[in-house]
Amino acid sequence: MKTTALIMAGGRGERFWPMSRKSMPKQFLPLTGTEKTMIQSTVERILPLVNMEDIYIATNREYFALIREQLPELPEENILCEPAAKNTAPCIGWGAVTMRKKYGDAMMIVLPSDHVVRQPALFRGVLKSAMRTAEETGGLVTLGISPKTPDTGYGYIQYDTEEGTGFESAFKVKRFVEKPNLETAKQYLASGEYLWNSGMFVWKASTILNEIKEKLPGNYELLEKIEESIGTENEAETVEGAFALMQSISIDYGIMEKAENVYVLPSSFGWDDVGSWLAVERLNPGNEMGNVIKGDIVSVGTSRCIVQGGKKMIAMVGMEDTIVVDTNDALLICAKDSAGEIKKVLEVLRAVNRTELL
Amino acid sequence: MKTTALIMAGGRGERFWPMSRKSMPKQFLPLTGTEKTMIQSTVERILPLVNMEDIYIATNREYFALIREQLPELPEENILCEPAAKNTAPCIGWGAVTMRKKYGDAMMIVLPSDHVVRQPALFRGVLKSAMRTAEETGGLVTLGISPKTPDTGYGYIQYDTEEGTGFESAFKVKRFVEKPNLETAKQYLASGEYLWNSGMFVWKASTILNEIKEKLPGNYELLEKIEESIGTENEAETVEGAFALMQSISIDYGIMEKAENVYVLPSSFGWDDVGSWLAVERLNPGNEMGNVIKGDIVSVGTSRCIVQGGKKMIAMVGMEDTIVVDTNDALLICAKDSAGEIKKVLEVLRAVNRTELL
Repeated sequence: MKTTALIMAGGRGERFWPMSRKSMPKQFLPLTGTEKTMIQSTVERILPLVNMEDIYIATNREYFALIREQLPELPEENILCEPAAKNTAPCIGWGAVTMRKKYGDAMMIVLPSDHVVRQPALFRGVLKSAMRTAEETGGLVTLGISPKTPDTGYGYIQYDTEEGTGFESAFKVKRFVEKPNLETAKQYLASGEYLWNSGMFVWKASTILNEIKEKLPGNYELLEKIEESIGTENEAETVEGAFALMQSISIDYGIMEKAENVYVLPSSFGWDDVGSWLAVERLNPGNEMGNVIKGDIVSVGTSRCIVQGGKKMIAMVGMEDTIVVDTNDALLICAKDSAGEIKKVLEVLRAVNRTELL
Repeated sequence: MKTTALIMAGGRGERFWPMSRKSMPKQFLPLTGTEKTMIQSTVERILPLVNMEDIYIATNREYFALIREQLPELPEENILCEPAAKNTAPCIGWGAVTMRKKYGDAMMIVLPSDHVVRQPALFRGVLKSAMRTAEETGGLVTLGISPKTPDTGYGYIQYDTEEGTGFESAFKVKRFVEKPNLETAKQYLASGEYLWNSGMFVWKASTILNEIKEKLPGNYELLEKIEESIGTENEAETVEGAFALMQSISIDYGIMEKAENVYVLPSSFGWDDVGSWLAVERLNPGNEMGNVIKGDIVSVGTSRCIVQGGKKMIAMVGMEDTIVVDTNDALLICAKDSAGEIKKVLEVLRAVNRTELL
C-alpha cells in the first residue's frame, strides 16, 4: 500500500508572538536552534519513509507562498489550501479523499508541522510499527508520548496496559481525556496508564473515511463531492462550497474520542510540541547561569532567562525567569510563569485594530 | 553684593544609561516628566534671584555645544569648560576667581545641574536665607535635606540642633559623613541630628577662596594664575596648564569636612537628586497598577514597573518591579533592586571597546 503523509500547517502560533505573526506563524520559523524551519524539519524527518510527491500539506491560502518558498521540491498540487478554517476533521477528510482518488487507498501519516523530534530515526521506527498496526488491525493508530512531568498543557490518552494487542508495540486505547488540572495530571503520571496526546496519527485512508462516514455523515457527503471534483474544472469551486458547509470539528473530538478501534504506541523519541517560548529553553542548552541567549546581549546577575535579541544590544541586569523577544516593531518582556498570557496582548492589539502587529 | 550662580554640569550620568550617554548625560535630558531638560530647569529655577548674565556653568568641552543649544540666552563666556576632570574643588575655585576678577567679590550659589526641586519658590526662600547667613557669618553655607528614609545613597550632615546661630534658620555643622550603611542610616534618621548632603552651597567668593588658600594652597596658587590671565590672550593656555597641575579633589573632602565655619539650612523643598531610574517613579505618577509608563506599551498583569519606550511597541506580561528603557541602539531590562548594577554593563561595554554604546 502506498505510504503518504498529510502535514497540517494552518496554525497561527500566537504563543510565539512577537516572533511569530499571523503572516509568519511558528511552523515557518527556525525556532529550535537549527537552520531549518519547523515545517522543513517535519518533511525532512519523514523523507526516508515517504516520497516527496506523496507528502501533502494542509494549510490556508495565506501560507501557500511560504510553503512554496520553504519546500520548493514539494509538488504545488500537494498543497491543500483550506478555503475556511474548519478545525482538523474536515482537512484530514479532504486529505483522505485526495489519497483515495489518487491511489484507491493509501496509508496516511498525519502530522503537525510545528513539533520537534530529537530522535528522528526512533520516530521513523515508531511510524513503521504504527503503519503495520494500522494495516493489520484496520484501526486508528495514534502516537502517545510517555509523560515525564504532570504537564497540564496536553490532552492525555489512557490505554490498556494489561493487554498488548499482539501487533507491534501497540496497545488498545481506553479513552482520550482533555487537558487535566495539575492534581489529575499527577494522578495520570503516577498511574502509568496515561500518555500525552501528540496529535500524530496513522491510518489507512479507507479507515478514517469509514469513521467520518459513520460519525460525521454530513461532512462525509461533502467530502465525496470534493472527491468527485478532483481533477475537474469544478474542483476549486467545489472545495470552496464544501468547506463553507462542513461542520468545524477536531479529529479528536469528532472521531478519536468516539471510535472503538483505536490503538496507541507509547513512544519516546524526544518529542516536543514547542508550545510556548518555554520550549526554547528545553530545546537549547543554557549558559552557566541558565540563560538561553541569542543575539547581542550583555547580562549582569541574570539567570534562567530566555532572550531572543533583534537588531539592538540588550542589557539584562538582575533579571530572573524572564522571556525577552525583540523584533523590528514589537518587543515582548514576559515573566516565564505568565507565558500563557501572551495571547492577551494579541487580544488588546486586535481590539484596537493594530493588525500590523498581529 | 552681586549674586551669582555656578552650576556644575560635567557629570556623565551613567546611572541613566542607555538613555543617558557619554555624549548626552542626564542633565541634558528631560527625565522628570517635564518638557525642559534638567539643566534648563535648574537655570529657570534661580532666574528670579540671579541675572542670566551672572550664571556660570562649569562643564567639560564635550558639552559646550549642548549647553549653547539648551541655554541660548546664557552668555557664551559664562560656560567654563574644564580642560581636565579634576572633581569639584578646582572647578568651584575657577568659578570663584572668575567672580572675584569680575566683581571684586560676589555671593556664589553653587548648584548641581541634575537635581529636581518640586517647590522652587520654597527653594528660593531657602537660598535667600543661605545668602544672608553667608554674608553675615562669613562662613560656608550648605543646604541639608531633611531625610525621610534611611537612604544609604547620600552623604549625611550632622548639625548642632541645640544651638541656633541666630542667623536665619541656619545651624552650625558638626561634621560631614560619607554614605552610611543601612543600620547607621537608620540611627541617623532616628536621632534627628542628620540631614542629607545635597551638594548645594552658598558662600562669598572671598570666603571659599580663603578656605582654598588655607586647605589646598597648591590649587590656590594655580587659581591665582588663572585669575591673572582672565581676559588676556593667554587665558585658555593658562587654564589648560593650571588644570593639568591642579590636585583632583572634591569640595566636600578638600574643604567642607575640614572647615570650621560651616552652616547648614535644614530644608524641605521637594528635592530629589534623580540618582537612578528609580527616581522616575518618585517623580511621575504611576497608573493604577503602579506602573510609570512612557511610549507605546501594552501591559498585562504587570505592576510597579518603569517603562520608557522607544520607537517600537513594548508588551509587558506578568512583570513586576522591572525597569525597561528602549533606545535606538540599546535596550535595558533591569530588576529595580539591581539598578545600582547598571554601571557593570558599561564596564563590559568599555572592556570590549563598544564606545558607540557608552
